[in-house]
Amino acid sequence: MDMATGGGDAHLPPVDPLARLRVAAQAREAAGLRRTLRPRTPDHDGLIDLASNDYLGLSRDERLVEAAVRAAREWGAGSTGSRLVTGTTSLHAELEDRLRAFTGAAGALVLSSGYLANLAAVTALGAGGLVVSDAGNHASIIDGCRLSRARVTVTPHKDVEAVEKALADRDEEHALVVTDAVFSVDGDLAPLRELHEAAVRYGALLLVDEAHSIGVVGERGQGAVHAAGLAGHPSVVMTVTLSKALGSQGGAVLGAPEVMRALVDAGRPFIFDTGLAPSCAGSALAALDIVSDHPELPGRARRHALALAGAAADRGLGAVDPAAAVVPVVLGPPQAALAAAEVFAEHGVRVGCFRPPSVPSGRSCLRLTARANLGSDDLAVIAGALTAVAEMKVNV
Amino acid sequence: MDMATGGGDAHLPPVDPLARLRVAAQAREAAGLRRTLRPRTPDHDGLIDLASNDYLGLSRDERLVEAAVRAAREWGAGSTGSRLVTGTTSLHAELEDRLRAFTGAAGALVLSSGYLANLAAVTALGAGGLVVSDAGNHASIIDGCRLSRARVTVTPHKDVEAVEKALADRDEEHALVVTDAVFSVDGDLAPLRELHEAAVRYGALLLVDEAHSIGVVGERGQGAVHAAGLAGHPSVVMTVTLSKALGSQGGAVLGAPEVMRALVDAGRPFIFDTGLAPSCAGSALAALDIVSDHPELPGRARRHALALAGAAADRGLGAVDPAAAVVPVVLGPPQAALAAAEVFAEHGVRVGCFRPPSVPSGRSCLRLTARANLGSDDLAVIAGALTAVAEMKVNV
Repeated sequence: MDMATGGGDAHLPPVDPLARLRVAAQAREAAGLRRTLRPRTPDHDGLIDLASNDYLGLSRDERLVEAAVRAAREWGAGSTGSRLVTGTTSLHAELEDRLRAFTGAAGALVLSSGYLANLAAVTALGAGGLVVSDAGNHASIIDGCRLSRARVTVTPHKDVEAVEKALADRDEEHALVVTDAVFSVDGDLAPLRELHEAAVRYGALLLVDEAHSIGVVGERGQGAVHAAGLAGHPSVVMTVTLSKALGSQGGAVLGAPEVMRALVDAGRPFIFDTGLAPSCAGSALAALDIVSDHPELPGRARRHALALAGAAADRGLGAVDPAAAVVPVVLGPPQAALAAAEVFAEHGVRVGCFRPPSVPSGRSCLRLTARANLGSDDLAVIAGALTAVAEMKVNV
Repeated sequence: MDMATGGGDAHLPPVDPLARLRVAAQAREAAGLRRTLRPRTPDHDGLIDLASNDYLGLSRDERLVEAAVRAAREWGAGSTGSRLVTGTTSLHAELEDRLRAFTGAAGALVLSSGYLANLAAVTALGAGGLVVSDAGNHASIIDGCRLSRARVTVTPHKDVEAVEKALADRDEEHALVVTDAVFSVDGDLAPLRELHEAAVRYGALLLVDEAHSIGVVGERGQGAVHAAGLAGHPSVVMTVTLSKALGSQGGAVLGAPEVMRALVDAGRPFIFDTGLAPSCAGSALAALDIVSDHPELPGRARRHALALAGAAADRGLGAVDPAAAVVPVVLGPPQAALAAAEVFAEHGVRVGCFRPPSVPSGRSCLRLTARANLGSDDLAVIAGALTAVAEMKVNV
């Protein structure tokens, strides 16, 4: 690196500040970690979509689209300001009412993304205390932990004993336990009841990210906290995204009035972000209507995920029963995952291909996402692709 | 606090984890720092809007609204995934092409918010080096600095010598200088040419947040970097927001291909966030069309800001000439700012009221934002409100 940048002494003639970025890019390329943005068409380039997070198949539903149209025509294209200045419309208030009713929480605050919802919740609730975070948590939770400037203990994946020990051994007065409800790549469910018991026993709050469970988990899709019987418990806080099963964009934090108060008064990503666009708020409201009127949709998404996982397991591709709509197929090295994604593409199926830093080193995988609106023809094509991937793996 | 929470020993019967939040809320209330969300109507409750960031008055423009409608109908309500999986549509690619052409940058990447654009840019470019950040920078830049885990030096507001000294004295091989182009509350312009000279001299990158300058600063609204003659310079990186002058939602990072590569491969908030909703991308594109076709709009917004600042100064409210559309009126204690905002409301004008943590302690202020579409009637009403605030201030 020294050679490429001309040495590290800032008093010498200026170095090219982009040189180190080129060197780093070459290193990633050599390691099979180069990523490419591929703009898609509205119909996913004619491929079966097994890659998006559109778990209920609602993003192109006419009711969501026309709700976006009505909201844009009534309210305009943007919310025009931060939530505390001009970015709160009565549509945002309606969406918050509906989100808390749907999930059983006491209060809700909508942000422009789930990413920012996690940053806001972890920083507002974690600062000055201990944050205990599962090793498998999403990047936005990890970034929230880093931003919080709390002491952070990362516990092994789903290890409740480790969480209890971290809480018991702490010197800090307050503590926050944070976990994905359904983990974003592995698709497994967190032990929410046990984590909640531990949190209550040690006077901590439990923050659960329902990004992959809202609209999918629970009899009526009300999420994993609701399914665990913990909805409305004052020590439980949730974050959700509006951009996955709910087909729109945005995120929210849900919880007790005290938590809402803390975010409104002092949650930096809540205070300093522009409010969600009205069109997105409108679509999310329409999605909540649809899920309420069609309680069969979440179950359909989950059954399709079980079918995909079963088909993968039958071919020695080792998927376990998924808790929601996410089915991982672990291949190992990044090049193997890329090759398997290519096999799927040749069969007319688009899948997610996850490599570091999205997954740990050596755990590159395909991520198949079930949708409520997959047809039996789709499932047959997917089975064919899985067979071809299994054969490729044997031949490597 | 010990009494309220029942003591800090976690082995005693569990404490109420919400108790400390109630205590903190009471303290903020006593300090005049309680905030309230007030849902507005589509017409800003019939008030003259001097609070939003809708600097060109485009958020409710029919062309933006109908672009959102078309995008939602063609693409659906959401982008369905992260940018690297299914969240990049050809509409996103078109928006990125147009943003780089408009600002003169080599490349552009769109995210779901300006907040995340700053987090992505500062972390991807700052990590492992030195970040030199202006004391007046926006919360999203500060959070980016904290997240980057770089060594961070905060320099006094617009102090180029301090920036030079920090760059010269560093041990780190690489460095990033980061500044708002137009500061979000004070409305003043950063010394971009001088900062750029310093960055080039010491082999650093310069990151400029054009949130409040895109669409407002420069002859055709192409931003402060363009106006300073720095557009397209390889060592300059920009962030912009699509939610202020451009009337929509979202943000972008603009810069050299090496910078775009670094963000796509390793920029966590870029990689792990859901792509911007198609409706918002469509509206932002329409706004860029309008600004290109109507180069008089940015000048109109700036002239209205000068008129507001002049009216405030005439009444002893001490505003300086604004660089863009933001005109602060500093009142001091939070209660004085709240009272002044109330006076404006009584005159039928909505203004922003900024208190800690949005501004430093003792610098609570009103934030007046000019719009290109303010009428002369509006300006007369506003002058009346300024007179009343000046009288209130004298009488305190």
